[in-house]
Amino acid sequence: MTDSAKLINDMGRNARSAFSRLTGVSDSQKSAALTAAARHLRASQDTIIAANQRDMDSARERGLSDSMLDRLMIDADRLESIASAVDDVAVLPDPVGQLIDRTERPNGLVMERIRVPLGVIGIIYESRPNVTADAAALALRSGNAVILRGGSEAIQSNGAIYDAMVAGVVEAGLPADAIQLVQTTDRAAVGAMLKASGLIDIIIPRGGKSLVKRVQDEARVPVLAHLDGICHTYIAKDADPEKALAIAVNAKMRRTGICGAMETLLIDQDYPAPGPLVRALLEAGCEVRGDDSVLELDERIVSAEAADWDTEYLAPILSVKMVNGADEALAHIASHGSHHTDVIVTEDSEMAERFILRADSAIVMHNASSQFADGGQFGLGAEIGISTGRLHARGPVALEGLTTYKWVVRGTGQTRP
Amino acid sequence: MTDSAKLINDMGRNARSAFSRLTGVSDSQKSAALTAAARHLRASQDTIIAANQRDMDSARERGLSDSMLDRLMIDADRLESIASAVDDVAVLPDPVGQLIDRTERPNGLVMERIRVPLGVIGIIYESRPNVTADAAALALRSGNAVILRGGSEAIQSNGAIYDAMVAGVVEAGLPADAIQLVQTTDRAAVGAMLKASGLIDIIIPRGGKSLVKRVQDEARVPVLAHLDGICHTYIAKDADPEKALAIAVNAKMRRTGICGAMETLLIDQDYPAPGPLVRALLEAGCEVRGDDSVLELDERIVSAEAADWDTEYLAPILSVKMVNGADEALAHIASHGSHHTDVIVTEDSEMAERFILRADSAIVMHNASSQFADGGQFGLGAEIGISTGRLHARGPVALEGLTTYKWVVRGTGQTRP
Repeated sequence: MTDSAKLINDMGRNARSAFSRLTGVSDSQKSAALTAAARHLRASQDTIIAANQRDMDSARERGLSDSMLDRLMIDADRLESIASAVDDVAVLPDPVGQLIDRTERPNGLVMERIRVPLGVIGIIYESRPNVTADAAALALRSGNAVILRGGSEAIQSNGAIYDAMVAGVVEAGLPADAIQLVQTTDRAAVGAMLKASGLIDIIIPRGGKSLVKRVQDEARVPVLAHLDGICHTYIAKDADPEKALAIAVNAKMRRTGICGAMETLLIDQDYPAPGPLVRALLEAGCEVRGDDSVLELDERIVSAEAADWDTEYLAPILSVKMVNGADEALAHIASHGSHHTDVIVTEDSEMAERFILRADSAIVMHNASSQFADGGQFGLGAEIGISTGRLHARGPVALEGLTTYKWVVRGTGQTRP
Repeated sequence: MTDSAKLINDMGRNARSAFSRLTGVSDSQKSAALTAAARHLRASQDTIIAANQRDMDSARERGLSDSMLDRLMIDADRLESIASAVDDVAVLPDPVGQLIDRTERPNGLVMERIRVPLGVIGIIYESRPNVTADAAALALRSGNAVILRGGSEAIQSNGAIYDAMVAGVVEAGLPADAIQLVQTTDRAAVGAMLKASGLIDIIIPRGGKSLVKRVQDEARVPVLAHLDGICHTYIAKDADPEKALAIAVNAKMRRTGICGAMETLLIDQDYPAPGPLVRALLEAGCEVRGDDSVLELDERIVSAEAADWDTEYLAPILSVKMVNGADEALAHIASHGSHHTDVIVTEDSEMAERFILRADSAIVMHNASSQFADGGQFGLGAEIGISTGRLHARGPVALEGLTTYKWVVRGTGQTRP
């Protein structure tokens, strides 16, 4: 066994033992641990900012880009946001113990399904040190033990935030190993986590596409993630032009770098006002890449190449295609989509229901901007990630997605004939 | 690409296309397909029994054991059972389209979760040809496409049953590729199924431990299964002796070869009547392997070895251990159990709740026989398997376990600020 494999093996065993101890812990104790952790985060402001300064200094030496430096940076305001996010999770309802369903059988046996934690969650993330607090809080709130592995560029910041979180956990009488941080920059530790079946129950990668792809390719442990967010908006022939315009501009331009941003606009060939729609996007500063029929709408539109239909730009660039009816829109989405979020804009409710039924996406929207694809916007209180997988949890994943269930059978001495 | 990989690739693409067409199919059409399939099974009695005879002849030539031959054999009665099981699935409630939950946000957006089929299910099974009809029926009832790969010893029987099933599917106007059968005995086809990520969404192995282990080790596609059923029954000090005796004998001896059969009996050292309990088991024909304290109870008891605590006998053999309280019972189960079904027998309801909370098993029972671990007994109408995994579906898995959900967001033109 290599050093990394041994490290992860030991951490995994400690996590399982902590998970087992967490099973007996009350809702209020988990909540108190997070409130205490938030307090320790605020009390450790100087330590955390000083640790972050060391990370920032090495990052500048290594020539990291300004946007990377911005994602890494922690000041007093950002630390307060981190701490108050932990406070927010502390007051979310605890999903553990919730009764999912209950049936009584003719022989008097009562079958219940109740929510229980998933077990041990591995989080592999890059840059933003807030994930250390954020992911640990969500995992612990739902009764799971967690093994965190952040990016090497944030190792000092993550360590300082982690110390504050653990102080809260211990203060509330929970096992310290409920939250563990992999404190080595050896990349082999990530490989060991991905192969730790039986010790880690699920891996959640948080970061860029190359990280997610590596995790999905190498993992032997189940992965909860999305690789791409190639979100489509289909403007049907009966769309309200005002709604269509507002939704399209918002879905593309509100923030272009998030996974719920629209990347392809499908306009029905019978939609009466394609020109104003495309011009509003151009005027909002969006580059528009169109097929031949779209090119005719405005001379600023450039010609789309085949690869455009499969590209997640995460930038003010949009591919636009004219389609003949909802079926052609659905066929395009089936070929080029990423099962993340797809939208229909129409006043024809029958067509909307058909689109909702047929679109094979984690999130299907009618007359709304795809930028709502976010756990907070869904009312989930927080979000550990968005899943485009089909199993276990889909779309925005929050506390409930970090639980599973057990069957409880209540009898009075029944034996099976 | 090898021939097998190409075969599975083609079947996978056809299955995905059939799955997409199934999305628009109504409940009554799926139900009609199964009713028609059951009718075709009955009408094909001569063909199916003749095909089965050819399998039986080759199996005898190859020297298969009597129990294997019995599992393979189809006569008129067994075919009628197969057909009526398909009829039963036809009338089960369709989970697809069911509303899981619904919330309205302050901005007027309505967030719904509705059940949708999983997608393409791969079933890999051995011997019993009824699985061809059974698994296909459950997969189709829940709107999934299915790729079936049975054992080589049943290839003629499976082919004949499959033909009847497809005839029903086509008669009801559903795509023929909704059900496909791998009609080659090349074992590489199994390997290709296990690696068909993106084409097959989940693999369900049905068969012996070596099959399940191979599938779990090699699969890159998620697997729904259980490897072992090392089920425990803990007789607490406050157990009712009459219930304890009836439950223990039933849990072990009703049928010894099923995964819900008890394999280890844990008796509290303060339970007042261990002697009658163990003697009832001995007298029912069970071999008892005990630890030192158990050995004193009866001279017919043999000494348990370390391996006994980790053994799924699937035979009239039982390991019996004296434990000091529920915590020691739980610790033993945590070390030696398989997260399948574990039982506490006690009249102390506080202790029962604590055991239910702490036992990390897919099914936890209080005062009932572990032999109830079966989808039919749980009122699920049927069962595609029992899962000891933690993700997606646990315990008995029926139609609901073959579904996932999608988020539907209903708006009136909302954009995100």
